[in-house]
Amino acid sequence: MAFGKKELKRKSENLSDWYTDVILKAELADYAPVKGTMVFRPYGYALWEKVQEIFNVMIKAAGVENAYFPLFIPLSLLEKEKAHVKGFSPELAIVTIGGGEELKDPLVVRPTSETIMYEMYKKWIHSWRDLPVLINQWNNCVRWEKRTYLFLRTMEFLWQEGHTVHETEDDAMKMVMNALEWYRRVYEEYFAIPVLLGRKSESEKFAGGKATYGVEPLMPDGKALQGATSHNLGQNFSKVFEIQFQTKEGKMEFAWQTSWGLSTRSLGGLFMVHGDDNGLILPPKIAPIQIVIMPIRKIGIESKELMAYCTEMKETLANGGIRAKLDIREEPSVGRRFNEWEVKGVPVRFEVGEKEVKDQTVTIARRDTGEKVVVTRSDMLIQTEKILKNIQESLFAKAKAFLDKNIRNAASFDEFKNIMKSDRGFIRAFWCEDADCEAKIKQETKAATRLLPLDAEEEKGVCVHCGKLAVHRWIFAQAY
Amino acid sequence: MAFGKKELKRKSENLSDWYTDVILKAELADYAPVKGTMVFRPYGYALWEKVQEIFNVMIKAAGVENAYFPLFIPLSLLEKEKAHVKGFSPELAIVTIGGGEELKDPLVVRPTSETIMYEMYKKWIHSWRDLPVLINQWNNCVRWEKRTYLFLRTMEFLWQEGHTVHETEDDAMKMVMNALEWYRRVYEEYFAIPVLLGRKSESEKFAGGKATYGVEPLMPDGKALQGATSHNLGQNFSKVFEIQFQTKEGKMEFAWQTSWGLSTRSLGGLFMVHGDDNGLILPPKIAPIQIVIMPIRKIGIESKELMAYCTEMKETLANGGIRAKLDIREEPSVGRRFNEWEVKGVPVRFEVGEKEVKDQTVTIARRDTGEKVVVTRSDMLIQTEKILKNIQESLFAKAKAFLDKNIRNAASFDEFKNIMKSDRGFIRAFWCEDADCEAKIKQETKAATRLLPLDAEEEKGVCVHCGKLAVHRWIFAQAY
Repeated sequence: MAFGKKELKRKSENLSDWYTDVILKAELADYAPVKGTMVFRPYGYALWEKVQEIFNVMIKAAGVENAYFPLFIPLSLLEKEKAHVKGFSPELAIVTIGGGEELKDPLVVRPTSETIMYEMYKKWIHSWRDLPVLINQWNNCVRWEKRTYLFLRTMEFLWQEGHTVHETEDDAMKMVMNALEWYRRVYEEYFAIPVLLGRKSESEKFAGGKATYGVEPLMPDGKALQGATSHNLGQNFSKVFEIQFQTKEGKMEFAWQTSWGLSTRSLGGLFMVHGDDNGLILPPKIAPIQIVIMPIRKIGIESKELMAYCTEMKETLANGGIRAKLDIREEPSVGRRFNEWEVKGVPVRFEVGEKEVKDQTVTIARRDTGEKVVVTRSDMLIQTEKILKNIQESLFAKAKAFLDKNIRNAASFDEFKNIMKSDRGFIRAFWCEDADCEAKIKQETKAATRLLPLDAEEEKGVCVHCGKLAVHRWIFAQAY
Repeated sequence: MAFGKKELKRKSENLSDWYTDVILKAELADYAPVKGTMVFRPYGYALWEKVQEIFNVMIKAAGVENAYFPLFIPLSLLEKEKAHVKGFSPELAIVTIGGGEELKDPLVVRPTSETIMYEMYKKWIHSWRDLPVLINQWNNCVRWEKRTYLFLRTMEFLWQEGHTVHETEDDAMKMVMNALEWYRRVYEEYFAIPVLLGRKSESEKFAGGKATYGVEPLMPDGKALQGATSHNLGQNFSKVFEIQFQTKEGKMEFAWQTSWGLSTRSLGGLFMVHGDDNGLILPPKIAPIQIVIMPIRKIGIESKELMAYCTEMKETLANGGIRAKLDIREEPSVGRRFNEWEVKGVPVRFEVGEKEVKDQTVTIARRDTGEKVVVTRSDMLIQTEKILKNIQESLFAKAKAFLDKNIRNAASFDEFKNIMKSDRGFIRAFWCEDADCEAKIKQETKAATRLLPLDAEEEKGVCVHCGKLAVHRWIFAQAY
């Protein structure tokens, strides 16, 4: 569907309105008939396919294999780990009728797969020879939700969930940190979004786990997004699910486990961070279409020469590993089609008219800066590669500058509240690590603890809220 | 888990027992806690990943894009197309509780996605400019089933479902035939399984569709497997879901639709066709591991030279695009590990001992014939490529010979019944195309119509069962 630039809501005026509007107009997604659900349209799903491709390379190089476990979990199985079921029970979708009959043991549509996977792991793991188990799955999960916030909050989402089993806690912790590093790379190297890395507080950790680590990007409105999480499960689940193994020394021991996940929510962060009033701006490394080639014809005049020139350029780009699309539509007008591709955030546009064919050149327009440059046909590939690389780096640098500017120390609670009333962003402050105190801070400021940075040093201080002794500065923010 | 060859059930004695046993022992899959469901273990899932890779290349080249539509369909939406809901309602899993509350409009866990997708298509399609819509999705589906037959019959299965919309029925039929050709290629070129192609009878066609086409392979016990189906939906759904478009001439017309699917069931056929008493035999083009390299060490003696030789060979193979695995385990014994890889159906085994290192050679053993050949290190890659190609072709040729031998004409119903009592296989016979007559044949012989071959000519004959006029010879078989 074609539309003019003026019809798109302005990011500079209202982030949230723009976000929903650009997602619908760029045809990334749409609302589905059931409240809380959404459709991933081809352009949006192509981004998820890129994430899968990137992430599969990382995990497979580390020996992690993909598998698939069932959607349905018996309610009785989910109830085995008490903290786990308590955390998830308000969000469950439950099948009570199957094949026309009422079920005796209702089935839960997986909100996450710990329980169903570990019930199987128990069958498969007997000896140290069976370890480590390094399994990941790409699937759909359901956590009940009536209001849809496209990508960011949906009843059904897509994700990967890795679930590993190890001989020692050391091995498990190495895995937890590996996953965190993979997530950092997805965000920073591909999404061009800098993140903070750290450990979650007790109240924010995964239900049933021992400790949760996460990556946290900052959105343009100063709110944080939980980017991805990696959990040290300790022996909590292995004790409940009886995952025991015989050690090399012949003793029986409970195994050490991890789980870690990255969901389609991450794409919401991607769209929010880089766009502008003209639409999305997709970082080249992740963009399904990196270059759109626009032959500019006089109305009613076919030009075989122009088409041949453009087609041949597209092939050169493809051979160079660049994802290019040739827009040969006759309508809507060129101007409206320019707008369409801008809304869709294609990083680079080639403009090719009679002049370019005659001069053997191409006019290259950047989506991020709007700059145009004319390069010769023979320089085209190398210049395009440079420009794509530069866009990727510029987007990251811009987001990094924004992040750096928006990490602030708060020495007092007044200062804390003032920051939350103005720019928000990440606040670094001493906190006593008491859950009640944390809840009060959130109630009064909307800011919750996001994480304790991995590199945080032990210091002596007093809690920004209650004044009690505090040994660490935590990162706070209002979260999506 | 290690095990000896003798512990595996024999294919030559009982196909069904062997089938289940080999799937469990090769660690392709396992039974999950909910009756009717199964776990795709990494080795089994890797085969599905190969299918996705192969099929995505085919469909994307034809302009089909992947997307993702929700798991939950409102019951009221499913009920829109009467024949469709009638076909699927006995098999539905229904969510009646969400977020702790009883739902007013219960949600169906998708058994297939026509209704949810077409409700969206209606919103997206307005003009001939919006056509064709060529969308595919890879997802999980649920059709209620209490007894699990691993891969072949499960409550939850994985598949791709393509759903396209066209301006004319001609365009739609071209798409139906393209999908059928893609399925033929998956089976014949990759799975090394020959198939029959044709149209399903009215009683066997897709619920709600106009005509169903399918590919049909033959299993070693003379039963047929529905390999994959491609449906011409006509305007049946577009009329119910009001998918109308303005033609180039300015008229409003209902669109022409197709849907087509290939599921994880196909892998069941793959395992059943090629294996033998020693386990699976995977065709090289689809095998997750094409070569297993086995360094043969004297017990307790480390050999750096041997390991370096094997590692370097693995790299040569990887650079040549061959999927090789180096088995460096110290236990179980070499003999037991040979058996393990045989059960898993790895097409080629490299045996490398001191002699091979000294002579700069490798002993290559074929899984399908058991033949061994010694080749020089410098010839290794080219010889391996030849052997893999030859295994792929031999497996197909063997399956083709079996299929050809097991397509029989039946001129009378006695002859028909005799074939069904002995070898089964495909039976070619005149049939009057009356559904009651078809039902009676099935009741008396267990053989149902499988398809009318695409190249079937119109002839004059009498129905093999009722003696009425018949113009086509149909293909019958007992189906899985």
